[in-house]
Amino acid sequence: MITSKQHSEVIERASVMLREAGIAITPEEGSHFEVADFGLGDLEQTGLEIIVYINTTRCCAKELVMFPGQTCPEHYHPTIDGVPGKEETFRCRWGTVYVYLQGDPTPFPACRPPKGSESYYKVWHEVCLKPGDQFTVHPDTVHWFQAGPEGAIVSEFSTQSRDELDRFTDPRIQRETLITA
Amino acid sequence: MITSKQHSEVIERASVMLREAGIAITPEEGSHFEVADFGLGDLEQTGLEIIVYINTTRCCAKELVMFPGQTCPEHYHPTIDGVPGKEETFRCRWGTVYVYLQGDPTPFPACRPPKGSESYYKVWHEVCLKPGDQFTVHPDTVHWFQAGPEGAIVSEFSTQSRDELDRFTDPRIQRETLITA
Repeated sequence: MITSKQHSEVIERASVMLREAGIAITPEEGSHFEVADFGLGDLEQTGLEIIVYINTTRCCAKELVMFPGQTCPEHYHPTIDGVPGKEETFRCRWGTVYVYLQGDPTPFPACRPPKGSESYYKVWHEVCLKPGDQFTVHPDTVHWFQAGPEGAIVSEFSTQSRDELDRFTDPRIQRETLITA
Repeated sequence: MITSKQHSEVIERASVMLREAGIAITPEEGSHFEVADFGLGDLEQTGLEIIVYINTTRCCAKELVMFPGQTCPEHYHPTIDGVPGKEETFRCRWGTVYVYLQGDPTPFPACRPPKGSESYYKVWHEVCLKPGDQFTVHPDTVHWFQAGPEGAIVSEFSTQSRDELDRFTDPRIQRETLITA
């Protein structure tokens, strides 16, 4: 839950980051920014600022803006009734983003989970993405990601996005962000 | 057909445009640039410089670099045996790109077809894309596009890319570019 004042401030801050990175958006896109707090009400730690460029039944592209140290919490995109889950490629455009996945844990990972949520972060195979680097996350693969100290801007290229199907490790998470007066 | 010397020069020129637009690519991506002359051997007029970020059976993303006035020739992505043709969204990142489609012809279009190929350009409904603007081309829709006088950089978000299925209006076109010594 965030207030509409916070919502506006967050959008302004994300817009400035895009502008400084030289990524153009239309005024309409700027006003439709999605602010996701994942229901935890602690956006600085756990959150994402998202512009959905296109999302059809066949494919999807987004720009993700992440504030310094901000985390998209651990989840996966399930295959359901034989329909493969979302396949997504994260391409770092600006800053640094660390993606964590199932697999051999990285001995000295660069990131720490958001404070108070440590027990909901279980996968620790680290991939570091700098501008121009990308990584594809296949369906049913548990993952989370966190921006480096300067923040990050990440293009996401994927199959259809159906956020309501995502399965999060943290049972407290709600994918819809409530905005209050 | 282009020579390997021309090929290197074109890649260098496209890389400079990306750098000046602030779009990061890896050295490996820079060395795998696809230069498409569509078999016409007249790259300044008819051609595309392409970095394929990802292309799976499910989705695809590319960065298209277009030199000033360069044209991607008229074609469509056919539905075959009930499998829908490619759906693609062009998002202008830098410069200007004019997309032409089936539909009401625009009275005073900004572009002219490549010289000597005029008869192979039949659709004239114009959409002008500046940085931040985008347009989705649906399967089976005849279209072509041309960069403005400063060139263009365009992100393409799509379903799987299978260039060999594209149907071009100009029967002389071959999608594969031959590179000679």
